[in-house]
This record gives sequence, C-alpha cells and structure tokens, in this order.
Amino acid sequence: MYPDSIQNLIESFKFLPGIGEKTAERLAFSVLEMEPEQVEVFSSSLVEVTQKVHPCSKCNTLTDQEVCFICSDPSRDPSILCVVEDPKSVFLFEKMGIFHGMYHVLNGLISPMDGVNPEDIGLSSFMNRVQNGNFKEIVFAFKPSIEGETTTLYIKRILEGMDIKVTRLASGVPIGADMEYMDSLTLERALQDRKIIE
Amino acid sequence: MYPDSIQNLIESFKFLPGIGEKTAERLAFSVLEMEPEQVEVFSSSLVEVTQKVHPCSKCNTLTDQEVCFICSDPSRDPSILCVVEDPKSVFLFEKMGIFHGMYHVLNGLISPMDGVNPEDIGLSSFMNRVQNGNFKEIVFAFKPSIEGETTTLYIKRILEGMDIKVTRLASGVPIGADMEYMDSLTLERALQDRKIIE
Repeated sequence: MYPDSIQNLIESFKFLPGIGEKTAERLAFSVLEMEPEQVEVFSSSLVEVTQKVHPCSKCNTLTDQEVCFICSDPSRDPSILCVVEDPKSVFLFEKMGIFHGMYHVLNGLISPMDGVNPEDIGLSSFMNRVQNGNFKEIVFAFKPSIEGETTTLYIKRILEGMDIKVTRLASGVPIGADMEYMDSLTLERALQDRKIIE
Repeated sequence: MYPDSIQNLIESFKFLPGIGEKTAERLAFSVLEMEPEQVEVFSSSLVEVTQKVHPCSKCNTLTDQEVCFICSDPSRDPSILCVVEDPKSVFLFEKMGIFHGMYHVLNGLISPMDGVNPEDIGLSSFMNRVQNGNFKEIVFAFKPSIEGETTTLYIKRILEGMDIKVTRLASGVPIGADMEYMDSLTLERALQDRKIIE
C-alpha cells in the first residue's frame, strides 16, 4: 500500500528495539519532513558507525581509533581497572566523570541458563591484560544480578594469588528511594553491608 | 566522549519526533548490533525516501510514481472524493479498506492562530480538480477540531452552487468507549446527530 521506499524505511525502523508498526510509520513520515541534508547525515552516519566503530584493541570498548580515548589518555590512573559487562557501561561512567582509572569491557556476563560460559566472555584477553599490567585494584561494576554475581565470583577465583585488591560496586538502597518499594534482596544486602557512622 | 560516528548517529536519532537523548543512545548502540546488510538497507532507504517520494500530481498524496496507486486504479469510484488533511490519513483509510472512492490531500488545515490561511493549504489545485472532475459527493475527513471545523466550513462555502453533495465524517461516541470518560463536546455532538433506531 505504501510506496516501496516508504515501506522499506518503515521495515528498517521496525528493526530497532522497542519500535513497533505504528511508531515506525510515524518515524518514516517524519523523515519526509526533514531537510534533505539532515537525512543525508543520518544515512551516512548509519553506515559510518558500522564501518568505523570497533572494539578498542586494549580495553575492548567501542572506538573509531586503534586505541580508545581512555586507554590513550596519559592522565588516567593505570593502577585501577574497572571491569564492565558492555561498552555502554564505560560511556555511562565517563559521562558522570566519577572514575579516573582504566576500563576493561567483557563480552557480557556468564549465564549458563543462556548458554554463555566463562570462555565466551573474553576472559583470556582480560587475564592477559591483568598479567601484563600493574594493577593494584580491580573493581567489578556489573549490574546486580545472578549473572553479575556469578561472573564476579568466577573472576575473583582466577585472580586468587595475585597481589591485587578485588572490589565491587556497593549494593544498597539507592539515594532518594522510597523504603517501602525496596525489594528484599536489596534491603538484605544494604543491611549486610551497613556502615559505621563516623 | 563517544566516538564521532556514534555521536553523529545519536544526534540524527534525536532529530526524530519523540526521541530524546537516552533513547537515541539506545538506538545508536542497537545499530552496532545489527547485521551490516541490514544497516545498509536502512541507510539507503532513508536517502531513497527523500529522493523518490513526492506528492501525487493528481491527489497530492505521497507516491514514488507520477500518479499514485489510487488515482491510477480504474476500479475506484470516481464520483466520490474524500478530502483529508495529510497523506497519513490516506494510508490510514486504505489500510482499513473501508473507502473505495478517490482522495484529495490538502496541505494541512486552516489555522489562523498558527498563521495558516486558506491560501496556504492548496485549495486552488483542489478547486481545479473539483471543477474539472465529475464528483457527486465530497466527504471531509478531518480530525474533529476547531481547525477541521473551520476548513470544512470554508470549503463548503466555496463549493456552494455546485451540484455536489458535501458531507463529513460522523462525530460521536467511539465504539467501545466508556461513557463517563467522554468529553462534553463529543457527547453534545452525539446527541445532536442522534439517529432513529430502525
């Protein structure tokens, strides 16, 4: 019913996560109202992103250089390594500007239920980096979940015997949260990890 | 912070209606997980849609042909003309398969508040078509609004004296609606337009 080119565009939008038929139609029509130059930029940035962006050869985050802007920044603290589950986490931390060490991006988390085993998440390049590096501390920044827990414990075990402090993000009640909406696991962890008021 | 090509893609997604920073980031990262062929199709359909799609020379709906698939369909009833405010309405009606006449797409609705006057909505090509056509009925299918009402009354006046039945979509309580959530204008119109039960 739609002209072919509109239909193709609708189908393309539907490939994006969380975009259904109606939204895809609305987006496709909005493209028709854009400036041609704007559409040109959109179109070329789609192709560019797949051609230029690839994992950083050191830390595995996404970059369009050989080595990412973090690994090539001499002002970062090379003694602390933050291990994350995907490149998105790196950009999230960087946006907040709260961490000044180095990162290492795994290829996801260990999840036997989904068939993701330790050998699937890029641990060999991680261990290589740790063995050749000079890290004093490794902090795990995975999402609080069974998979995050499993991966943390697995890596902690293979790091045993090395003179490296192994830490993880604190779990607990988020700032501003309403106590009555907290789940029991979060409250339990917050209670276990309670801190002395100084 | 993001590599340039990711940042450009995020900016492009943000140009789409209803897509903010967070969603744009999510969509840009999802593009990185697509098959390269899929991204290629997405990219080229964006450019194609702006290059190939244009208003139909007869009815002003969007098409990639000289004349759209409706105007060129000999099985349609040429005696009834449905006037709509944008091409989206045409595709909406066609999808439902409930109308078998011809369409005419205006360039929006008269809205003095927004500076849209009668001469801005393409009425001259509409009148041309009506004068050279052989329409027995013209039905207005605008959204129920002040602008829709104004446009309907304006066109009805300039059609006066021509032997054409002028109608509009029925307004009233939508099927399945809950009475207590109906607004007073809708209920008033539904009461005015009440029908004899036969």
